[in-house]
Amino acid sequence: MNELLHFAKQSLDSQPFSRFLGAEIEHIDGTDVAIRLPLREELKQQHGFAHGGVLSYLADNALTFAGGMALGPAVLTAEFKINYVRPAVGTALVARAGVIYAGRSQAVCRCDVFARDAESEKLVATAQGTISKVESLKRE
Amino acid sequence: MNELLHFAKQSLDSQPFSRFLGAEIEHIDGTDVAIRLPLREELKQQHGFAHGGVLSYLADNALTFAGGMALGPAVLTAEFKINYVRPAVGTALVARAGVIYAGRSQAVCRCDVFARDAESEKLVATAQGTISKVESLKRE
Amino acid sequence: MNELLHFAKQSLDSQPFSRFLGAEIEHIDGTDVAIRLPLREELKQQHGFAHGGVLSYLADNALTFAGGMALGPAVLTAEFKINYVRPAVGTALVARAGVIYAGRSQAVCRCDVFARDAESEKLVATAQGTISKVESLKRE
Amino acid sequence: MNELLHFAKQSLDSQPFSRFLGAEIEHIDGTDVAIRLPLREELKQQHGFAHGGVLSYLADNALTFAGGMALGPAVLTAEFKINYVRPAVGTALVARAGVIYAGRSQAVCRCDVFARDAESEKLVATAQGTISKVESLKRE
Repeated sequence: MNELLHFAKQSLDSQPFSRFLGAEIEHIDGTDVAIRLPLREELKQQHGFAHGGVLSYLADNALTFAGGMALGPAVLTAEFKINYVRPAVGTALVARAGVIYAGRSQAVCRCDVFARDAESEKLVATAQGTISKVESLKRE
Repeated sequence: MNELLHFAKQSLDSQPFSRFLGAEIEHIDGTDVAIRLPLREELKQQHGFAHGGVLSYLADNALTFAGGMALGPAVLTAEFKINYVRPAVGTALVARAGVIYAGRSQAVCRCDVFARDAESEKLVATAQGTISKVESLKRE
Repeated sequence: MNELLHFAKQSLDSQPFSRFLGAEIEHIDGTDVAIRLPLREELKQQHGFAHGGVLSYLADNALTFAGGMALGPAVLTAEFKINYVRPAVGTALVARAGVIYAGRSQAVCRCDVFARDAESEKLVATAQGTISKVESLKRE
Repeated sequence: MNELLHFAKQSLDSQPFSRFLGAEIEHIDGTDVAIRLPLREELKQQHGFAHGGVLSYLADNALTFAGGMALGPAVLTAEFKINYVRPAVGTALVARAGVIYAGRSQAVCRCDVFARDAESEKLVATAQGTISKVESLKRE
């Protein structure tokens, strides 16, 4: 396992909420990152689809990892926007994110979230946001 | 307990993900809705703050309930945008949402998310989004 | 005319695009700012409503002035989101903006845009965005 | 000149505001659309860059045309979000937009805005938004 993947896995695992939901780094290569989340019952809303908040969690997190590839590990999501496009059904969700533009202290990133089953992947949400480098760990 | 509050509590409790996180309707009056989430360890990121995805879940959900007050119960969040403004520390999070504009099939809503401890509440995020009425339960 | 109003008017007038469209500072008090734009033919789209781009210009500009009240005059809009809620008809548009949260280097602001005629004002759009302090005048 | 291009040019020219600014359809092929705007003095802010409102106008308009390719000509932009990433300098701006997802009544579209000079194009802003089909020409 390469170093970046190892580091990203450790970083994700250090988030209690990501462990609680069961998210995993599926891929990271310095340009793109993919975070996978097996879609179990607890992550759904009342109609059997993944809860929108699960999708927004995944998008937020994948955007942050994407920004971190450009800005270094001390980053946080300053803001993002998400459009939901389809109900999310399947066995897992996958959020794929990358950097659109990176300056010294901020990066603008995009993320597509897919619902995957044995046969296919379908886009279920798309997001765009700003990742900020932080000096310390405190948001200002 | 009034009827709207009763209905909203049932609706929130029917979402497996909201039960999993522990969210509760704190207030709903036809104009404003407040959803509370006790901030336990599992909801945090690596620095001890509430995970951004928890805040975005809360905002998404409060926006949906706000839209539902205007459009009826068969609604979903079509899209939203969130700005994080402070690290969220405290004993609970509270998301307060209301309707800015409602048409026949869509409502534009706003939500402020606060971190609460014994003494005060501080704004930690603010969101704006579109809630859509759905004919059936399937997103188109 | 007070000093802040004088300064804001000069600042708006120093923008060729704002002069080209005809925007004017209607009010500024350190907390809220209102920018007015008489709605003439050139600002419309094909159906006789104000063009969405005119509303987004107004929102962008009012957000920047709001952020400037908190962060000082060397600011720019880093990003914003706008929801259009009604067709904009009337004799003028008015964008009212204020600060939701201000840190040292960034402020999160909100803006409502109204269409005004002789008798009333109606909300036509609502926006939320991030204003950033700049060291120099160059975006990074 | 093919039919779609002809129709798009007529549609853009029917917008008084787009004529006022000088926007032109550069390309449209059913999947992607590009709108060009020569960057003259009247479109700038006080530091000589294109005004943010000009970029947001372009993004809004290109998003609408992109949505129209999927949904038919009777569409409007319901909402969008834009991140500014660089000061826009050059001889022209070009907004390129496409459809991410289209349902029956709404499409989610993306747009990148570039500043162009004799030698290159640089990304200056990126946007994402929702385009809605309208029955009549009135927003609800």
